Amino acid sequence: MTLDNVDALLFDVFGTVVDWRSSVTAELEAFADRKGISRGTVDWGKFAQQWRTGYIVNTRKIAEGGGGPSNVDLLHRQLLDELLASSEWATIANYWTEDDRQYLNLAWHRLKGWPDTTEGLYALKKQRIIATLSNGNVRLLVDMAKHSDLPWDAVFSGDLFGSYKPNPKVYLGGPQQLSLPTEKCAMVAAHIHDLRAAASHGYKTIYVRRSGEDVGISADVKSKTEGGDVDIIVDSFIELAEVLKRK
Amino acid sequence: MTLDNVDALLFDVFGTVVDWRSSVTAELEAFADRKGISRGTVDWGKFAQQWRTGYIVNTRKIAEGGGGPSNVDLLHRQLLDELLASSEWATIANYWTEDDRQYLNLAWHRLKGWPDTTEGLYALKKQRIIATLSNGNVRLLVDMAKHSDLPWDAVFSGDLFGSYKPNPKVYLGGPQQLSLPTEKCAMVAAHIHDLRAAASHGYKTIYVRRSGEDVGISADVKSKTEGGDVDIIVDSFIELAEVLKRK
Repeated sequence: MTLDNVDALLFDVFGTVVDWRSSVTAELEAFADRKGISRGTVDWGKFAQQWRTGYIVNTRKIAEGGGGPSNVDLLHRQLLDELLASSEWATIANYWTEDDRQYLNLAWHRLKGWPDTTEGLYALKKQRIIATLSNGNVRLLVDMAKHSDLPWDAVFSGDLFGSYKPNPKVYLGGPQQLSLPTEKCAMVAAHIHDLRAAASHGYKTIYVRRSGEDVGISADVKSKTEGGDVDIIVDSFIELAEVLKRK
Repeated sequence: MTLDNVDALLFDVFGTVVDWRSSVTAELEAFADRKGISRGTVDWGKFAQQWRTGYIVNTRKIAEGGGGPSNVDLLHRQLLDELLASSEWATIANYWTEDDRQYLNLAWHRLKGWPDTTEGLYALKKQRIIATLSNGNVRLLVDMAKHSDLPWDAVFSGDLFGSYKPNPKVYLGGPQQLSLPTEKCAMVAAHIHDLRAAASHGYKTIYVRRSGEDVGISADVKSKTEGGDVDIIVDSFIELAEVLKRK
């Protein structure tokens, strides 16, 4: 098997390990219920998507050398305040107290795994080193791991290495801390751009198809044996643990 | 209880979490057996102690700004080669091939916990964030955790923060990554100098009495309620989990 020499699996987290969309939307809907905002009047899924999009745009800008918070908690809060100050969400802004903003900003610490996540990670942990390589800050990732039973061997974050993916400092930092060449590491992600950036530094690549991630893209991703550019494609971590089993 | 506000426990590892002396001595004795070196002729406990002392002297020198490897695997190997080149160990030096040196240098990745360690850490993990704050490198700590079932929430090492304890960068790095003021962290160690350095940065302190550590010192360490300077003194992690239970 082409990945027999891989000693460590480095995981993207948001979307790959956890279902951010359902988790954040559910917390927003519960908030709306507490405030007496009727369900049909606000598209909370759209609100969650805009929050997430702001994160993606800003982490990428900072990774390329632009200014902004290196800690995702601070970035998420700045983005939340901007959303609530925009005309689109003016009708709901008044409901949000300072306490609500603080509490819901930490919804990103309480994201739930996909149905296969915990079982799959426990199986993978028996075979390899499993670690995060996420743009989320360490505290966020630690809280999430405790909340959703994610048994990481190590928690690596962009903040720890001074930038965000796709900055090379992040891709090189994880393997360096594990005393491994990048060729002995595989990046696991539901986003092809993450895998392509990792591969440019020598990583092996594992693509996980996840509902709502890489929309309009994932169907065209092919493995090397199919003429594409990723090493392995799977639909779950449980499947991955089967595929990676060393004979 | 004085430590109710503590959200994270940061652990010294060598001597506090794992019994380096028995583990390393046992690996050296097994090596001697494989080589046919008779048991009575070499004091392997003394060899282990000299290796460890070299580590303590050198990490401290580097922490204070001196030169030397920031990665403990490299430092351990350099010290091992120096020991075997010394006149004291000349009679055994010839037995060590390059493979033996590489293999036994990694004995520090295979250290075993004290009898209470694993059960105690699982209990503490339910109450607080538990993380290493060790001079060992991340890979060493990850290998050791897998080998000896140490369920860390996060693995922090000196190398990750660019120095060794007692350099302030290390004591400040862990809490910063956990988004906590040092006052909400407790340092857990079997070495009073480690706790005093941590306390100087605002940490709470937990002293664990461990056989063979702080020899000639540990009996004089007192808690604040006894007129001393540490917050809590315990004899095991299981006892610590009982003491820290939030009512």
